[in-house]
Amino acid sequence: MSLIVQKYGGTSVADLERINVVAKRISSTFEQGNDLVVILSAMAGVTDGLISKALQVTTKPDKRELDVLLATGEQITSALMAITLQTMNYSAISLLGFQANVLTNTDHGNARIVEIDTSRISFHLDKRKIVIIAGFQGWDPDKNITTLGRGGSDTSAVAIAAALNADVCEIYTDVDGIYTADPNVCKKARKLDKISYDEILEMASLGAKVLQIRSVEIAKKYNVPVHVRSSFSEEEGTMVVNEYPEMESIIVSGVTSNKDEARITLKQVPDQPGIAEKIFNPITDAGIVVDMIIQNTWVGDTTDITFTVPMGDYEKALEIETEVAKNIMAEEVRGDSNISKVSVTGVGMKNHSGVASLMFKTLAAENINIIMISTSEIRISCVIEEKYTELAVRALHTAFGLDKQ
Amino acid sequence: MSLIVQKYGGTSVADLERINVVAKRISSTFEQGNDLVVILSAMAGVTDGLISKALQVTTKPDKRELDVLLATGEQITSALMAITLQTMNYSAISLLGFQANVLTNTDHGNARIVEIDTSRISFHLDKRKIVIIAGFQGWDPDKNITTLGRGGSDTSAVAIAAALNADVCEIYTDVDGIYTADPNVCKKARKLDKISYDEILEMASLGAKVLQIRSVEIAKKYNVPVHVRSSFSEEEGTMVVNEYPEMESIIVSGVTSNKDEARITLKQVPDQPGIAEKIFNPITDAGIVVDMIIQNTWVGDTTDITFTVPMGDYEKALEIETEVAKNIMAEEVRGDSNISKVSVTGVGMKNHSGVASLMFKTLAAENINIIMISTSEIRISCVIEEKYTELAVRALHTAFGLDKQ
Repeated sequence: MSLIVQKYGGTSVADLERINVVAKRISSTFEQGNDLVVILSAMAGVTDGLISKALQVTTKPDKRELDVLLATGEQITSALMAITLQTMNYSAISLLGFQANVLTNTDHGNARIVEIDTSRISFHLDKRKIVIIAGFQGWDPDKNITTLGRGGSDTSAVAIAAALNADVCEIYTDVDGIYTADPNVCKKARKLDKISYDEILEMASLGAKVLQIRSVEIAKKYNVPVHVRSSFSEEEGTMVVNEYPEMESIIVSGVTSNKDEARITLKQVPDQPGIAEKIFNPITDAGIVVDMIIQNTWVGDTTDITFTVPMGDYEKALEIETEVAKNIMAEEVRGDSNISKVSVTGVGMKNHSGVASLMFKTLAAENINIIMISTSEIRISCVIEEKYTELAVRALHTAFGLDKQ
Repeated sequence: MSLIVQKYGGTSVADLERINVVAKRISSTFEQGNDLVVILSAMAGVTDGLISKALQVTTKPDKRELDVLLATGEQITSALMAITLQTMNYSAISLLGFQANVLTNTDHGNARIVEIDTSRISFHLDKRKIVIIAGFQGWDPDKNITTLGRGGSDTSAVAIAAALNADVCEIYTDVDGIYTADPNVCKKARKLDKISYDEILEMASLGAKVLQIRSVEIAKKYNVPVHVRSSFSEEEGTMVVNEYPEMESIIVSGVTSNKDEARITLKQVPDQPGIAEKIFNPITDAGIVVDMIIQNTWVGDTTDITFTVPMGDYEKALEIETEVAKNIMAEEVRGDSNISKVSVTGVGMKNHSGVASLMFKTLAAENINIIMISTSEIRISCVIEEKYTELAVRALHTAFGLDKQ
């Protein structure tokens, strides 16, 4: 007998029919003698519908009130699921974020979980109830409703699994696992049986978007085994686990790409101490997250500084830097939004050389020019022209031996 | 400067446009220097939509879970109203039932308010915020979401007004006040400027349905002046207040009717001590509320017992009594659902005689047969054949001098 936490995403509970299908899966897990906690998202489309209502009132709805509005989505699914399970003669109870004692900070719209007091969850589990919890939501110390940001139900699930010391956290979604590349881009992509927390962290932040990145951070911190799988099939999905020795024999686990970035270059910046601060402080103050930064120092007393920002912040960042350039006497500011970042990720890289050169060689063979390069211990990323993205992913997938037989 | 509690019903906040209209009314009350607490219902149709979802799953959804589901309706309206007011540059905050500390008992679907700790409401009022509260909902001592039953937002509003010791509780609805009769039935009906708590209590329970009856009980108990008015016009509505001396000069304030009852008769019941208990206990145990009871004792040792029940419980009550009749050796059970109850209500009756005889005379003049009669201190009701309902209301309205000039 195990303690299992299951999380079902929006498409898995899109309507009453889907809720019924999921209820059967829940009951069969329960019938196997497991204790079961189920975290639910809003029905597909509901959250977007609520956001659009708020946006009809104003383009900048108050974040506290938006949380009050959005939290209803998961509340509805949870009640309907509890009712469905009860109709099938299972003892089930729904708990909202605050009832499950998911205490967060007050950062509305993007709150962080501070603590989960599991006593009420355990109380119901001890009575052999199936506990249904509204994902994505919590409350702050002043009893305000908070939400955890897009994909926050993943974080709810993993955090609750960690707090309960659950045996596994199953994330049910509309894909059947994590692939070596996006199957829409690369037909030869393979489903991975296992992947490490660190690899998925690198891949998620690079645009793989299978799991909310914070949920993986929590899973890693508390060593929660996460099973990503489809609610539309019975097939096993991908286990996200701690790194283990055999993993290192696999040099690259996946190829990912991210078109959602833009590049800004300040040309001929006077090369003085403190100049980087003058360039990046205004950007940071505006709440913009800079990804890659590259500095090329030329002969003489000026340097070129290039960095990338999320596409949504591109115009604003360009505006800020145009002002900065005037102040620091840089020659020129250039921007480019037609870029994409292609990455190869794998824990095996730590002990293997030649990964970077194989990557560069592969791109060169396709006549793809590399604009920027950045690396981590287990990842190499190249910024290229956006139009080559899919070609690059497929070429790298083949080159690193990931194609399915 | 006053402390005003306003409540807006579902049709008043039916869509974003209506919410905007209501927001303007709220802001103008606030601009006059008043402290303002606003209680909101779900947008028209939302609660029914949620109920219908639950009923698609099962005909008997669990009441606790149904409360979780239904409470989202008022939550959505409250957030949208707060956002709308903020967009108009007013400082507004939404509070859910539990955040406003509306503590209830655990009777899901029909919970009673036990206590309201107003400290959080007052905290925000002191900061000159407009406090928006989701009506219809509260929480029980175990932090379960509860709802107060159909029309429960009226009760939320009056109870919160009582707890805050507000100067007035304004109930905004889609009618412009309380009438001497239903204007759809009686074209000569007049809007009342004032009516007493007791009169409205009698009229509401008789089918006038202007205010949830429990809200009037609370208003009476705590002497909260209630102003029933329309959110679609600027006109003054009807004040519901304590009885005052001049009221007694008006003998009858209104004529009401209720078609939602059915009659059951047990014929030739052995006239023994304890027989009434045997007849009514099984009905009460089934949760059915009996309204009128009449017993006719005949010469000999049997009696006929007739009573009325709500239409929705008619079939069940008939079934129960058919069984009872066998056990107590009654001769026969008869039922009749084609009845209606017509009533005249007025505090002036206490000191005036002849009201009953005028009522009987008026009905007789229209050839309407009286099937049952019941009276209270301020009301006389006659059960008649259903088809005569509208005719009876109009005739009584004229006979008691209520027609508008």
